[in-house]
Amino acid sequence: MSDKKISQAVINRLPRYYRYLSELKSEGVERISSGDLSEKMHTTASQIRQDLNNFGGFGQQGYGYQVDSLHEEIGRILGLDREPSVIIVGAGNLGLALAHYPGFEKRGFRVEGIFDKDENKIGKSAGDMTISSMNDLAGFVKGRDIDIAALTLPRNAAEEVVGDLYDLGIRAFWNFTSADIRELCGGDVVVENVHLAESLMRLSYAITDGE
Amino acid sequence: MSDKKISQAVINRLPRYYRYLSELKSEGVERISSGDLSEKMHTTASQIRQDLNNFGGFGQQGYGYQVDSLHEEIGRILGLDREPSVIIVGAGNLGLALAHYPGFEKRGFRVEGIFDKDENKIGKSAGDMTISSMNDLAGFVKGRDIDIAALTLPRNAAEEVVGDLYDLGIRAFWNFTSADIRELCGGDVVVENVHLAESLMRLSYAITDGE
Repeated sequence: MSDKKISQAVINRLPRYYRYLSELKSEGVERISSGDLSEKMHTTASQIRQDLNNFGGFGQQGYGYQVDSLHEEIGRILGLDREPSVIIVGAGNLGLALAHYPGFEKRGFRVEGIFDKDENKIGKSAGDMTISSMNDLAGFVKGRDIDIAALTLPRNAAEEVVGDLYDLGIRAFWNFTSADIRELCGGDVVVENVHLAESLMRLSYAITDGE
Repeated sequence: MSDKKISQAVINRLPRYYRYLSELKSEGVERISSGDLSEKMHTTASQIRQDLNNFGGFGQQGYGYQVDSLHEEIGRILGLDREPSVIIVGAGNLGLALAHYPGFEKRGFRVEGIFDKDENKIGKSAGDMTISSMNDLAGFVKGRDIDIAALTLPRNAAEEVVGDLYDLGIRAFWNFTSADIRELCGGDVVVENVHLAESLMRLSYAITDGE
């Protein structure tokens, strides 16, 4: 089975499947029918069967899906078994929130460091880590194989630092700023933008639309 | 012109248009062609013309769009002119990040209060506000017309409090937890979920897929 055959629409839903399967696993559920899973996920059983058929023979008629093996297989497709390594660039409230975020470890990510340029923050603890100086970032990254930089600093500061991160070999950005990372780096980067303002505006629209 | 005719796909893109138009406005740009806007937004000029045609006669052949009036019109459709009011429930790092988040004010949202149950946090400042006790939440909301509750507390705590918020008349939730708010409240709520874990897993997939 090649992962390449899986459509983008299915891929987009995989993190959601993984999240629900993680919940079921932690509740000790061993098997689940497409009907029960669809109810939990507010979708149709038919959609679930279609989607999960992409991943081989985990579903059996009248038996349901094996939570554990499906969880493991989807995790593998998502690359979580490779334990992606992360640094957090910017130790403001958002950076600190990520430093304390249990979702990293739960999904197999390794958070290796957190950086800030503010001397008042450097040396203070953040989760299991100590906040390092931005001046030490290059040396830190060079000795390690860092996959992802989470950008939790002001936009202007992000625009200044992202070229350096690229030159240090980082090709994936979890971008909480409104900076256009792809434009700053050139083409060969992957960027996941978390646009809080857009999310908030969708909510505003949904309220307005209902009246 | 009725807003109802606008398709969901276009609506989903409106916050992005609004964001770029805000940028142009702050840069002092008065007019922009669909070509220039499409370049900035990494989409096609044809898509932009199709989308913005929904909002009446702002575009003129050979003249471009008037940034100011288009910005205002899209803001109106998104309900930003009504200045939606927000409370932040949970004053951990994420709640504090939102309390300091300039995007609220910039988009016309009014953040009215921030709450926590931790006695060590109550009374401390968060942005322009002081952290209030969860015990005072009901009294606070009753005297005001609160549109949106941002849920920045642990999932279990969110599950406990969301019914109270609903009973107090709050019908819109900006949900940073993995709790299923709609299920907890019944049908007539609007929920915008910010699933950081899913975002992170999409990034992991994108790295894996490229190799």
